[in-house]
Amino acid sequence: MEKVRAAVCGYGNLGRAVERALAASDDLFPAAVFTRRPQVAAAQTDTPVFELEALFAPHPELDVAILCGSSAYDLAWQTPRCAEFLPFVDSFDIHSQARRHFDEANAAARGAGTVGVVSAGWDPGLFSLDRCLGEAFLPGGHTATFWGKGVSQGHSAAIRGVAGVRDARQYTVPDPLRVAEAREADAPARAAQSLHVRECCVVAEPGADKKRIEREIRSMPGYFEGWRTRVHFVSERWLRRRAGMQHAGRVIRAGRAPDASAHVMERALTLGSNPAFTANVLCACARAAVRLAKSGATGCRTMLDIPPALYHPAGGRFLLQQLL
Amino acid sequence: MEKVRAAVCGYGNLGRAVERALAASDDLFPAAVFTRRPQVAAAQTDTPVFELEALFAPHPELDVAILCGSSAYDLAWQTPRCAEFLPFVDSFDIHSQARRHFDEANAAARGAGTVGVVSAGWDPGLFSLDRCLGEAFLPGGHTATFWGKGVSQGHSAAIRGVAGVRDARQYTVPDPLRVAEAREADAPARAAQSLHVRECCVVAEPGADKKRIEREIRSMPGYFEGWRTRVHFVSERWLRRRAGMQHAGRVIRAGRAPDASAHVMERALTLGSNPAFTANVLCACARAAVRLAKSGATGCRTMLDIPPALYHPAGGRFLLQQLL
Repeated sequence: MEKVRAAVCGYGNLGRAVERALAASDDLFPAAVFTRRPQVAAAQTDTPVFELEALFAPHPELDVAILCGSSAYDLAWQTPRCAEFLPFVDSFDIHSQARRHFDEANAAARGAGTVGVVSAGWDPGLFSLDRCLGEAFLPGGHTATFWGKGVSQGHSAAIRGVAGVRDARQYTVPDPLRVAEAREADAPARAAQSLHVRECCVVAEPGADKKRIEREIRSMPGYFEGWRTRVHFVSERWLRRRAGMQHAGRVIRAGRAPDASAHVMERALTLGSNPAFTANVLCACARAAVRLAKSGATGCRTMLDIPPALYHPAGGRFLLQQLL
Repeated sequence: MEKVRAAVCGYGNLGRAVERALAASDDLFPAAVFTRRPQVAAAQTDTPVFELEALFAPHPELDVAILCGSSAYDLAWQTPRCAEFLPFVDSFDIHSQARRHFDEANAAARGAGTVGVVSAGWDPGLFSLDRCLGEAFLPGGHTATFWGKGVSQGHSAAIRGVAGVRDARQYTVPDPLRVAEAREADAPARAAQSLHVRECCVVAEPGADKKRIEREIRSMPGYFEGWRTRVHFVSERWLRRRAGMQHAGRVIRAGRAPDASAHVMERALTLGSNPAFTANVLCACARAAVRLAKSGATGCRTMLDIPPALYHPAGGRFLLQQLL
């Protein structure tokens, strides 16, 4: 079997994890790395490294590109441009812009006759799929998505932008009482804000006004305003010691069938490394994108549109026999 | 929106639950019931009732048939025959014969230009999908499927076939230590037999030889031989009081990413009524089958082959905005 030739685009935590996942796979391999800083990457890998701009050109030597940049700064323009040239997978995760991003990637892919998957990963991604199955299989119910305990990179960066903050990390933590409540058939629907606590661990600059820092964090619209937020001032040493990329989450759907019987569908993830698991999902999506391309499909997909068998390295007959 | 006109074929616990689920739906409705005993069904429902044999004929007035008979006695021949005439969904659940059943339904459907879904439900079905996602997203891992606590109908019937047994119910119960072990990244792979205990609650005929009954149950090949089996003799009253159709189960995938980080993916179901939940899944599959038929697809599918969005009553744009 010829291995799928995948390009890794972006060489941060996620890009490096994708390269490792490709290298560990039996049917995919890392054929190229594209990055803004090729010298830095070249010192860390044996995979051929190229300037990011070189991605946006015909690539008969590649089967698929996995875009590992930041949703806010990179993917919004990189994915549609990449779609002009080859099958693609990205992990675009800004919910409020997901539809526009999909439309732009879809237009580019349809125009060029390529196919790809956007907003892949665990949320959006696997959890989107679980929310969809929950609503479809238990129509008389309510869904709650819990994130954590784990670090929110976006919220941590937002805190680091506050004057007087030297470093910060924000842990999102589900409220265990809300998790228990979400499993009750007749529980009320609740906003994400009431399901979680945002724990902000902040290293202040010497002499900084901690009261003001806390006030500014709490009132940050789109990040902390309206959320249950706790601010803790910690030492640099404390923060450094607790570095780590663990994350977790669950999607709970509970409700009643037409005969009034109570049911719970639950998905739980416990991740030792958020980028390592996301990388695994992206690689499975790359496999699916290449298969879709081979079947003649064009345009953009999300994980809601992909038959699960396409993620699996084995073919349909094996799955029928072994997994059904 | 025109509602999907669905036929319910078979009018036992599952068929009645499917009829209720269709009636509760906004986009599907129960247009006909086909059964071997039409008089019995007609006394219980306002849906038009027909002789089972009438199903196997052209039905321009129907969009899809949901086959609710027994895997062992009905579906093996009913599904392929039904496939000659209209889109179909069944819950065929005999794992060892699933591939042959698929092939027969597939041949009939391809010949007739229809499309359908076999082996739908929660296991096989939703759990098949979860096992597939587990292997695809966490390749370096092991999967364990737990069933219960809940009644196994097939095993209960097998016990009732033993001479001297008046009634019986078999509860499958996961071993909680094995559930905990399955979440460890480096746990050994274990056969289903070692993950469960089969609790057999047996009402013996007066004067029957209980030692012989217990011996015959324990040594029944394909059912109890090789399983951790416990036989309890109970009164008829005890058994009747504990009637109920609750079931539960979980699929746990645990393992390591290429960077050695440990991960757990888990699906858990708690079902107040096994037939009511299975019926909900079958109805969502009927919706998917009708959409596949409209798109011109033919042949047989399992839930591994179906894009999740097809199960959901709303269209793709809504899902992109609300669920992603």
